[in-house]
Amino acid sequence: MEAEIIAVGSEIMLGDIQNTHAQYLSVQLCELGIDVLFHTAVGDNEKRLTETVQTALSRCDLLIITGGLGPTKDDLTKEIVCRALEIPLKRDEKIQSSIERYFQKSGCSMTENNLRQADCPEGATILENPNGTAPGLIIQKGNIQVILLPGPPGELRPLFEQQVKPHLSKQMGKTILSHNIHVFDIGESKVDSLVADIMDGKNPTLGVYAKDGEVRLRATAKADSKEKCEEMLRPMIKEIRNRLDPFIYGIDVKSLENALVQTALKKKKTFALAESCTGGMVAQRVTSIPGASEVFSYGIVSYSNKIKEKQLGVKKKTLKKYSAVSSQTAEEMAEQARKKGKADVGISITGIAGPGGGSKEKPVGLVYIGVSTKEKCFSFKYLFARGLQNERDAIRNRACKQALDLARKAIDQLP
Amino acid sequence: MEAEIIAVGSEIMLGDIQNTHAQYLSVQLCELGIDVLFHTAVGDNEKRLTETVQTALSRCDLLIITGGLGPTKDDLTKEIVCRALEIPLKRDEKIQSSIERYFQKSGCSMTENNLRQADCPEGATILENPNGTAPGLIIQKGNIQVILLPGPPGELRPLFEQQVKPHLSKQMGKTILSHNIHVFDIGESKVDSLVADIMDGKNPTLGVYAKDGEVRLRATAKADSKEKCEEMLRPMIKEIRNRLDPFIYGIDVKSLENALVQTALKKKKTFALAESCTGGMVAQRVTSIPGASEVFSYGIVSYSNKIKEKQLGVKKKTLKKYSAVSSQTAEEMAEQARKKGKADVGISITGIAGPGGGSKEKPVGLVYIGVSTKEKCFSFKYLFARGLQNERDAIRNRACKQALDLARKAIDQLP
Repeated sequence: MEAEIIAVGSEIMLGDIQNTHAQYLSVQLCELGIDVLFHTAVGDNEKRLTETVQTALSRCDLLIITGGLGPTKDDLTKEIVCRALEIPLKRDEKIQSSIERYFQKSGCSMTENNLRQADCPEGATILENPNGTAPGLIIQKGNIQVILLPGPPGELRPLFEQQVKPHLSKQMGKTILSHNIHVFDIGESKVDSLVADIMDGKNPTLGVYAKDGEVRLRATAKADSKEKCEEMLRPMIKEIRNRLDPFIYGIDVKSLENALVQTALKKKKTFALAESCTGGMVAQRVTSIPGASEVFSYGIVSYSNKIKEKQLGVKKKTLKKYSAVSSQTAEEMAEQARKKGKADVGISITGIAGPGGGSKEKPVGLVYIGVSTKEKCFSFKYLFARGLQNERDAIRNRACKQALDLARKAIDQLP
Repeated sequence: MEAEIIAVGSEIMLGDIQNTHAQYLSVQLCELGIDVLFHTAVGDNEKRLTETVQTALSRCDLLIITGGLGPTKDDLTKEIVCRALEIPLKRDEKIQSSIERYFQKSGCSMTENNLRQADCPEGATILENPNGTAPGLIIQKGNIQVILLPGPPGELRPLFEQQVKPHLSKQMGKTILSHNIHVFDIGESKVDSLVADIMDGKNPTLGVYAKDGEVRLRATAKADSKEKCEEMLRPMIKEIRNRLDPFIYGIDVKSLENALVQTALKKKKTFALAESCTGGMVAQRVTSIPGASEVFSYGIVSYSNKIKEKQLGVKKKTLKKYSAVSSQTAEEMAEQARKKGKADVGISITGIAGPGGGSKEKPVGLVYIGVSTKEKCFSFKYLFARGLQNERDAIRNRACKQALDLARKAIDQLP
């Protein structure tokens, strides 16, 4: 099946918003084994949208159009698609009453325009939208299928995952299942070379993707059932585990902070944080996970020597003799964080994020991460700079990820 | 001038990468007064790329194509554009020797393929690319102008800003200048209604954009010189200041945290943070600004009552009587943060980010922000929930922004 994706909206043409649907839907369709051949974005303009829809209909089997389903005069998608496919629009009473209910509940006044959203192409499958008033639509005409989806990502994504994906998956006649193996602290080319032979397979397939300092391996199987897919993926994932084990932080887990919080919850252990150059970034990511409060309750951002000494309890002597960016300070910070937070593990980060503050001995990008448990205290030294300009964000981000990974490993090794 | 943007790359079709060039270039072209009518993305496929280029050439004055300029067999952009425009390709000696030098320097071996990057359309303007080996190209044929740019953002953006933008600006015959007025704590529709009459103007123009809980007003003038533009914008910005003053946090400033750090540096004042539900987010954003260490040195993430009491110094009685999410606790947190951090202003955030932890009296989304100075201590109560699912990130983000804004205002009011 060959697909094409059109995003409708003048705000995309003005650059006010990013057309994120194209990438999202491409990933989803690829997983289903559907080839995506074109992405187009066009403004809320009748002539140009008509032209774009007609071109797409002339060359694809599946056309997904996002946006332009709202209640205003500018919203033309439905009308233009129906005209191109020669299908009449009819008012759907069920949608009409749900729109009326929505307005009654919200206390806003409804205009006749709002009811345009209840007009549906004859014979179309209506996809209920629990997060908005514009329903999604699946229109079949001959060999061509057109799927209309509302523009807001918070409406489009649940609609796609809960209703469109199962529908397309059924059409493709096969179940497609993927697992993501997340690795950290190893480069993409190194991963590539370690699994190159596995990547040659046709079913299941293996893809390697690098993003934001992490690498993700995506194993995908196509079969008659979910169980069969799982069965095909099991040996592949086992083999990947054999080769990459120390670097794998999780399978189908959303992020390093998720893996950390999950590990701590599972092991019933707590951790505390003392941050210098990351300035609260590690704590922020940890607390972005619901339920983090069960395993994390104390973090300090000690952004000066005085605060490191007076509020965290690093010895003045240590700071004077070794400076704030040193293994000694990192270790004392981690230990004090653990003690003050009454936690099982203390983690600290101290370094030079730049652009200023570097020297020959302690250059921008130098970061120490300390780890303290009841039994031991140690630290690691990193140089995260790559010699580019404006690396502050990259250095902080890399230090943060490394700290999250070390915290998880430290907790995992506790008895 | 009507423009169209084509991004070339199979990795875009697979969803492996986001086509960020479309938005970036749209913003840039809009600023120049050039209308963008279509974005298209297509894979590295000769037939489909040819079709896409021909369609675009038939309807626009300016076509910008990104990607597909690399040295591999897959990179077809230059050849296809030249064929469509009936312009021959010729090897450019200067580029050839610069590619040869590049390989000599890097110690990698060069193949004949690499030299394909030295083939240029006859008569094209060559844009030197200091960040890669593929140069940019400007091709003029009749009334149509085609600009080819390399795909990596780190190559494309400097090339565009330093070479393409001045070139197009000259063609447009006018200087275009914009200023952004950033406002916070007021909704888009309210801003709209307060400046509706100003928005009717043709030159300078005023646009209102909402994003991520903030509103930005963009005033743009078109004239013969930069000075003339500034002169035209001055009264408009003054009038906007008159109407929106209490909500304006800066002009041409990057973010609330930037405005806060700038204000503190200017007033030579320091601040400290005690965060509960934002879990370090405020500190993280503050420390993302280079130089923040001069005005910020202490933050605590007190993610439990025990830590609020033992490490921050909130009275046990207060926590017991009023609970952690209360104005009393917020105020004590702010005061203690200020004292422990030896700062001029203390700011605290305590609330319920959800999804769990809410009750009828203290629902998810309830947030108190405390402000403490030497002279006074007060707090504000907010309800940031909008009744949607998964609002945790939105609540934390909104609370963080509000805290950054209150911190700036508190510092600004200090003597």
